[in-house]
Amino acid sequence: MPGLLLGDAFPNFEAETTIGQIKLHEFLGDSWGVLFSHPRDYTPVCTTELGRAARLSTEFSKRNVKMIALSIDCLEDHHSWSKDILAYNCEDSACRSLPFPIIADSKRELAVALGMLDPDEKDKDGLPLTARCVFVIGPDKRLKLSILYPATTGRNFDEILRAVDSLQATAGKRVSTPADWKPGDCVMVPASMPEEEAAALFPAGVYTKDLPSGKKYLRYTPQQ
Amino acid sequence: MPGLLLGDAFPNFEAETTIGQIKLHEFLGDSWGVLFSHPRDYTPVCTTELGRAARLSTEFSKRNVKMIALSIDCLEDHHSWSKDILAYNCEDSACRSLPFPIIADSKRELAVALGMLDPDEKDKDGLPLTARCVFVIGPDKRLKLSILYPATTGRNFDEILRAVDSLQATAGKRVSTPADWKPGDCVMVPASMPEEEAAALFPAGVYTKDLPSGKKYLRYTPQQ
Repeated sequence: MPGLLLGDAFPNFEAETTIGQIKLHEFLGDSWGVLFSHPRDYTPVCTTELGRAARLSTEFSKRNVKMIALSIDCLEDHHSWSKDILAYNCEDSACRSLPFPIIADSKRELAVALGMLDPDEKDKDGLPLTARCVFVIGPDKRLKLSILYPATTGRNFDEILRAVDSLQATAGKRVSTPADWKPGDCVMVPASMPEEEAAALFPAGVYTKDLPSGKKYLRYTPQQ
Repeated sequence: MPGLLLGDAFPNFEAETTIGQIKLHEFLGDSWGVLFSHPRDYTPVCTTELGRAARLSTEFSKRNVKMIALSIDCLEDHHSWSKDILAYNCEDSACRSLPFPIIADSKRELAVALGMLDPDEKDKDGLPLTARCVFVIGPDKRLKLSILYPATTGRNFDEILRAVDSLQATAGKRVSTPADWKPGDCVMVPASMPEEEAAALFPAGVYTKDLPSGKKYLRYTPQQ
């Protein structure tokens, strides 16, 4: 069945990549994972996207996130195109390589299985290309978050990093992050947590906003 | 089948909302649509999110986008909670109403059909709540873009607006938008378009970046 939902176990597929044959779960190990697909090598938007992803890769590494890209192109194209991406980033493409592998899904098996195709974008044989899909996978190998943009819309990798920060700030903790949250901003206390418990759990303080309903659920606490 | 893919026809469901019974396609008319779900009324993150969505609603209207929210709560809760959202936005909740309707999916029928549930977040009866799902629907009633965040991670409605701007800037046009694009930035020329055609189609100029591959696909043109 194409399409993965939140909480689904992420398949442990085997794939050919620019760093050799991998099995996804072994590649990820205990890390978080960001798997992102692009329509085609040697195309303009994809080059800007993978360039941005490469520039942000140290930020993802710091957060214990392994990145892996995917398209339906062959390994040879991935390798040569990588030099263009590095040159776009103004880096010496002769002596560097991309900081993450790219999967060569030339038979479209993963693209179909993971629901990554964009029916509006076809190659010269009339077959659909991969869309701009992002899956964030937790250390438990379950899907934590996904986005699905069409070929015409380049993604915002800073938003993906922000979302990873939120996932990590809240995983296993009894807090959540409000709209537009950034690291360092206050986080929110669960509506169901009794006042005394919140006071004990969040010694830095709990701030409650008064609301017409009189209910005391809009509660902030500094991020710990 | 839960989970909608890009290009799928968006179901013309009937629903109970804070503005009465609607059929989705009739509600949308010729507009674009943004359907977004939240876990629960009277909860902290959802209040900040719907507050942010309400503040941005004139921006969405300007772009001919109709917004509609959804959760598994009942109509009565939606109505009373709306006053809290307006108060959170520092607006007079006595004489105003939210600028978009909220669907009351109290039987979870739409949440299940559209793959919106978050298995990690359950109500007191152990049933899963709705995740933070966003569907952007085109005037052709097909899915253009989707995001799926868990209950713990508040969304970024500015990114949703940016994505809508890209969808609209590229719909029916032979351009696409690079990573992190904002309205007014240059757009990109399709890799497959011959040089002469690009020169004729984009009289404001086409700028090509030199790349190690020698291929001439990284081409920008001012947004028209």
